[in-house]
Amino acid sequence: MAVNLLPPQQQSIYPIAGVRLGVAQAGIRKANRYDLTLIELAPQTVVSGVFTQNRFCAAPVQVCREHLAQSASIRALLINTGIANAGTGEQGLYAANKSCEELANLLHIDAQQVLPFSTGVIMEPLPVNKLVQALPQAVANLQDNHWLEAAQAIMTTDTVAKAYSKKIDLNGQQITITGISKGSGMIHPNMATMLGFIATDAKLTPRAAQQLVREAVEQSFNRITIDGDTSTNDSFVLMATQQQGPEIDDLKSAHGQLLASAVIEVASQLAQAMVRDGEGATKFITITVKGGKTQQECLQVAFAIAHSPLVKTAFFASDPNLGRILAAVGYAGIPDMEQQLIELYLDDVHVVTQGGRNPAYCEEEGQRVMAKSEIRICVDLNRGKACETVWTCDLSHDYVSINADYRS
Amino acid sequence: MAVNLLPPQQQSIYPIAGVRLGVAQAGIRKANRYDLTLIELAPQTVVSGVFTQNRFCAAPVQVCREHLAQSASIRALLINTGIANAGTGEQGLYAANKSCEELANLLHIDAQQVLPFSTGVIMEPLPVNKLVQALPQAVANLQDNHWLEAAQAIMTTDTVAKAYSKKIDLNGQQITITGISKGSGMIHPNMATMLGFIATDAKLTPRAAQQLVREAVEQSFNRITIDGDTSTNDSFVLMATQQQGPEIDDLKSAHGQLLASAVIEVASQLAQAMVRDGEGATKFITITVKGGKTQQECLQVAFAIAHSPLVKTAFFASDPNLGRILAAVGYAGIPDMEQQLIELYLDDVHVVTQGGRNPAYCEEEGQRVMAKSEIRICVDLNRGKACETVWTCDLSHDYVSINADYRS
Repeated sequence: MAVNLLPPQQQSIYPIAGVRLGVAQAGIRKANRYDLTLIELAPQTVVSGVFTQNRFCAAPVQVCREHLAQSASIRALLINTGIANAGTGEQGLYAANKSCEELANLLHIDAQQVLPFSTGVIMEPLPVNKLVQALPQAVANLQDNHWLEAAQAIMTTDTVAKAYSKKIDLNGQQITITGISKGSGMIHPNMATMLGFIATDAKLTPRAAQQLVREAVEQSFNRITIDGDTSTNDSFVLMATQQQGPEIDDLKSAHGQLLASAVIEVASQLAQAMVRDGEGATKFITITVKGGKTQQECLQVAFAIAHSPLVKTAFFASDPNLGRILAAVGYAGIPDMEQQLIELYLDDVHVVTQGGRNPAYCEEEGQRVMAKSEIRICVDLNRGKACETVWTCDLSHDYVSINADYRS
Repeated sequence: MAVNLLPPQQQSIYPIAGVRLGVAQAGIRKANRYDLTLIELAPQTVVSGVFTQNRFCAAPVQVCREHLAQSASIRALLINTGIANAGTGEQGLYAANKSCEELANLLHIDAQQVLPFSTGVIMEPLPVNKLVQALPQAVANLQDNHWLEAAQAIMTTDTVAKAYSKKIDLNGQQITITGISKGSGMIHPNMATMLGFIATDAKLTPRAAQQLVREAVEQSFNRITIDGDTSTNDSFVLMATQQQGPEIDDLKSAHGQLLASAVIEVASQLAQAMVRDGEGATKFITITVKGGKTQQECLQVAFAIAHSPLVKTAFFASDPNLGRILAAVGYAGIPDMEQQLIELYLDDVHVVTQGGRNPAYCEEEGQRVMAKSEIRICVDLNRGKACETVWTCDLSHDYVSINADYRS
């Protein structure tokens, strides 16, 4: 029931030289489904990641941070679904480390060259033996064109796999970028239960990769919200296999800008796909706040609207109960905001002017827009020049059903 | 479907000397229901109020603030349901002022001696003529024992009227305190779509009343949350009719402490009743966070748990998916929190120790507690001596239904 989101097609998802992917059925929580994904990287691949800001971060996140700090050369990513391996204490760290060690043995690399990722139920132990037993199956499955299989194997409550590819030309050489991600609840700024993996064959230096992974997250995954919950396991990793094109050390160079914009496009497409496939989503809502004094206050207002259960249920009902948007603008925490400056638009319909109902607004116009599956909200604060956009979805009965029944 | 909340009984709600209440059917939004409430106060009554911090505050809130600042002697409160008169610009201010003027004419007082309150749909115009036409009916209905009628007439999506009374002895004289309130969505710290009115016959000075209204809100209405939305219309008013007992100018005096604790008890009972009758609520959840360095950080953690849609849907499902509580603790925004210090209890069940699943915890024990209609969560941060408690409810299908269909 994702909002206007089709499954990615094999022919539009391009392999990346230096990356192979394999999937396996480990039976971690349920039998007969692919729940283990291996991404193998060529030597010299530059890897950079950003992780959840949740203080209760999962064991694999802790291990990822250690391995990225220790090892100059990451060679494999290992992702399981079913169990998040979070809130699992020492035993959880043991399980995450053990899975790295066993995979390292199979691939003849060091355990520090493996990054582990988990997503699923929190506070239940990861059955590491099942995971380890399935590793040879994942290794045997390694192929450079298994991106879609990987996109499917990392899904939890997602209903549609998320993958996106793009090719650009740098100095006459073709550079490819391909990414996969999974949502689809606990999606919130500053990462969420989301895993995102983007690879490119470009020659990015570690310094540039580090900058780019942060900038890409800021413009994509940190601009979306589904339910305001921030997960223990969020991870986003950028991998550059150094196989094609000119070396890029500076994102502000001409080549750097081209590559950055393409990576951000891939990240944004993945992020927006997560919203379209948000748990129970029936509407895709783009919220733009302009006329702010700062970007920060625009984001505060946009997320206040995006997080409001009352706004979200009104969208679910296609009910132009638009005063709820004004209420959210009002409690966004901007102390000196003046309500008589506020303008509100719903798509092309001018709903509020000077802080009150626009005399020209009629409910039928609001109703017409609310009936659509994709809706733009625009709030003008009229107090500055900053502008920000975030994406969210509505709050439906299915959200409650999915999250009430998630473990059953 | 309120959680263990019975309607108040006439014999347990005591009149307050100096207060009369009247209700009327104004047909503001729906016909044949009491939607207008008048509270008439004896001369010399001391009145103090606190109002929403929403920057988009409703017209009546703006007028209340003005009248409290201008007039030393408030003589009447006028409350309508159906339309919130918020997001209504100049026209809304006109309507709020007009209703004060017309009531003032009927009661032979000044318009500045009237406080107006509205609750209901935002951004629709208040049909002030209908309201004005019903004023004589409300005046004719004035009685000192109409507290229950008033409690019913101020309800919107509430399913049970909220009223609470208490008598105390001060210096051999009996002091009475009676309050009414309405919820029941948009309930959030720093006030919500809540209206609360507490009257006492005590002799409170304006200074003491001002202190007490703030302290009472802090300990009651600012400790509850239903959906995290803060309304445009929240108002809480304390009225002291000066008819009984010793004069109280200092809340720290013996008499002041006794009265304060009784008023806070009434406010807390009203606030908790609002949570029990929260939109769609099936569980009443008490969240205590102890071992914090500051009260503020305890509240941050408690509200992060209380606001999490994932925690709330798990309680709705009676599913001990308790890792979601840990995740909320982790994203509460305490940068130096250490997960290995965290302990988590669900009623008497010790679920998490040292940041990981307690080896002695078994799911059946969690299941047993989750099946109850009243549940206590206790989180120990183990880093200080501060402790705070907040109250919330679960997130159910009915919450979505109520808010998707609210205007229809």
